[in-house]
This record gives sequence, structure tokens and C-alpha cells, in this order.
Amino acid sequence: MGAGVDRSEVEAIVREAVSRRFGRACTTCSKASPSSLVVNVSARHTHLSQADVEQLFGPGYSLTPMRPLYQDGHFAAQETVTLIGPRSRLISNLRILGPCRKQTQIELAFTDAVTLGIDDIPIRLSGDIDGTPGALVMGPRGVLQLKQGVIRAAMHVHMSTTDAESYGVKHRDVMKLRVGGDAGVTFTRVHARVDPSYKLEVHMDTDEANACGLRFTRDVQLLK
Amino acid sequence: MGAGVDRSEVEAIVREAVSRRFGRACTTCSKASPSSLVVNVSARHTHLSQADVEQLFGPGYSLTPMRPLYQDGHFAAQETVTLIGPRSRLISNLRILGPCRKQTQIELAFTDAVTLGIDDIPIRLSGDIDGTPGALVMGPRGVLQLKQGVIRAAMHVHMSTTDAESYGVKHRDVMKLRVGGDAGVTFTRVHARVDPSYKLEVHMDTDEANACGLRFTRDVQLLK
Repeated sequence: MGAGVDRSEVEAIVREAVSRRFGRACTTCSKASPSSLVVNVSARHTHLSQADVEQLFGPGYSLTPMRPLYQDGHFAAQETVTLIGPRSRLISNLRILGPCRKQTQIELAFTDAVTLGIDDIPIRLSGDIDGTPGALVMGPRGVLQLKQGVIRAAMHVHMSTTDAESYGVKHRDVMKLRVGGDAGVTFTRVHARVDPSYKLEVHMDTDEANACGLRFTRDVQLLK
Repeated sequence: MGAGVDRSEVEAIVREAVSRRFGRACTTCSKASPSSLVVNVSARHTHLSQADVEQLFGPGYSLTPMRPLYQDGHFAAQETVTLIGPRSRLISNLRILGPCRKQTQIELAFTDAVTLGIDDIPIRLSGDIDGTPGALVMGPRGVLQLKQGVIRAAMHVHMSTTDAESYGVKHRDVMKLRVGGDAGVTFTRVHARVDPSYKLEVHMDTDEANACGLRFTRDVQLLK
């Protein structure tokens, strides 16, 4: 940006919104005491397979948790990597989220992608990476030539089976997230991700949080 | 961002969306052949009073038009200024838009504001700057200590009296802008700015354009 100012600062501010909880207004709920709605901002990050962790950090290496994320068992790792895109542009200190997954996947906001030289990043659900752009990933002990896996994550909401029932939705349904305040934005393609282990949590990226002024409002509503 | 990458590049990409025209779907229009809907992305910029132009560029100085904007008589000037915010952070090459106005006003996206050290930029309509943050503005011949005038512009649509009639709205009404595509966003606080001289044009900022994926969709609809 402008003159050598660090985007991480922008993200730190936006991420303040992370741990706030919004009261959920659900006029159609049939069940009592639904879960509180949590809206968290995902800054750019990567998930890695164990094989790719070893490629980047050395044989037998395991990620070291730095802080837990809201979903049980998930964590931000101490380790980061450097991402190198087309035209030799790079993003350094890209945070790794654990635990390891089957497939390596890099999640960027649109702004991040353009910064990296990827002008047409596809919006995808997690895991759906066929035909997406690749990148070069650099770790302290090796380099990974990723053929595909760079996506802008589609906005989504994690929810338990119980929460899904109370909202009247099922896995992969598309919901809405209404954000009030002076900006006034309704996100109309919020994908429901239902699993018995999930806690109710919407994930949006830094561009989306900035656009809707998430930091400045508590008026947020998840709708069928 | 990441590692010394220039935000202007990001904006150049987003600004590609600028000159595209979207077909307007207006099922409630009573008049034939409504104007085509144009959605333009406003990157950060400043409007200056003539007195402030002279303070920054020297006595008797006039702005030099570089390229015309979509609204008749408006232009991006050749001249730029440097903006200095709290904690000595700065944004250089801030474009001046002409012609001069009564009051100097600086329009930033939320991301720009945080970059500059302003963490709580208010969302305001153009001209409504009472109680907004100030900044230090630096030109080649002088410095301006702006006491107020830094805003995030509320999303708005310029329209002629005829277009306003065809949409069934009046000056200062709040409309909606539905953006389709994979992101799927409806902006619910789009302020109508009605004037006989205006051409139909929505202005959104760079954060908003990035969040809704404006570059990737032609499915845009202005609604009452």
C-alpha cells in the first residue's frame, strides 16, 4: 500500500472483530437457546499436508501450535512460509493453520491475490481446488512447487447438526449474512458447513470485513 | 501488504471494472429505455478548495486535468499530494479530483485509513465532514493542516431527475445494489444523489469492489 506500510497492521485491526460475539436474531427458530453467532475474520493463510510440511521444514517435522482457533482442535501454527506468485512477487510470513490436511491449500483475499500477481483467483469452498492456480511455497528447509490450491475461500458458516436444524438448513445450503451499520451489506452466498463437531462460526476474509465495516457494528444476522 | 508490494497495482486491476457497463434490470420501471447502469470504483482521492490548492501548490495555481471522469466536468488532475496521518504514517501520490470544491475532503477506503493510522474512519456522504478526522497534507509548495475532512464515502449512486423518477426514488433515498457472481453481495445502503446534470453511476470504493468480486461479474442490479 501507499508507502511501505504493512498490511498486517490492517489485518490486526480488523481481526479485533474476531472474538466478539453477536447476538443472533433468528425469528424462525423453533428450538430454545440457539448458539451465539460468532463472526471471525480469516486473514490469508495456508493449510498443508504432512508431506508438504516435511518438504518445507524437513523430514519428520511437525507443526507447533501457537494459539487455538475457535473450532476445537484447530490452531494457528508458529510456522510461516513465503509465497511466491507469478512475476516474482511474494507474500512473506504466510501463517500455517493446523492440523495438517490431505491436500495443501492456500486461502487469500482478492487483494492478497492481486498483490501476489494472481488477478483471477477463483472463489471456492475449502477442498475444491481442481483447476485453481498454483504458487511456489518456500520454507526454511525446502521449496514446494504447488500446481494448484490457491483459492479465495467462499464465505461460509460452520455449524453443528443441532444449529443446522434450528436454522432449517443442511450441509452445503447457501445462507445470507446481513451486516447492519453505516456500510450495510448482505452477503448472499454464505455456504453452510455442517458437522456434529462444529461450533457456530461465520468465516469471512479481510476484504469482506473491511467492506462491511464489521469492526463497527454488532448488528449481524445469519438468515436462511 | 506482504512484502513491499504496491497497492496501486491492486487498484489498477480493480479499476478495470470501471468503464464496463452493466445492463440494468429494472422490473418496476414505468418509462422506456432507462439509462445503462455504470458502476465505477473510486480509489482513494482528495477534493481540494481553491485556497487549499494554492496553499499546497503556490499562489494562483490551478489544477491541470489529466483525464475526464464519467460525470461531466469532473476530472482526475495531474497533481497529487502526500497524506500524513497519526503516528507519522503516510500515503503518497494521493490523486486530486477536480474541479475545486468549497471544502477540502479526503476519501479513503477502510483499508487505506487503517494504513494511515486512522482506525475509526466514519462513513459519510460527500460534504458531511463535521467531526471527522483530520490529516496533514503535503504539496510541493506548502503543507496543509486539515482539522477535519477524512471520510470513507458512503456508497452512492449519481442519477438524473429522469432516472430518479424511473427508479421511483428521490434525492437522499437509500437504495440497494445487488451484485451476483460467486461472491454474492447486496449493498443495502446506497445513497441516491439526484441532480439534473448527473449521469447514472454507482460509486463504490476499492474494499467494496474487492469484497463483491465486481471485476468478475456483469450481474449487477440497482434496486429501490
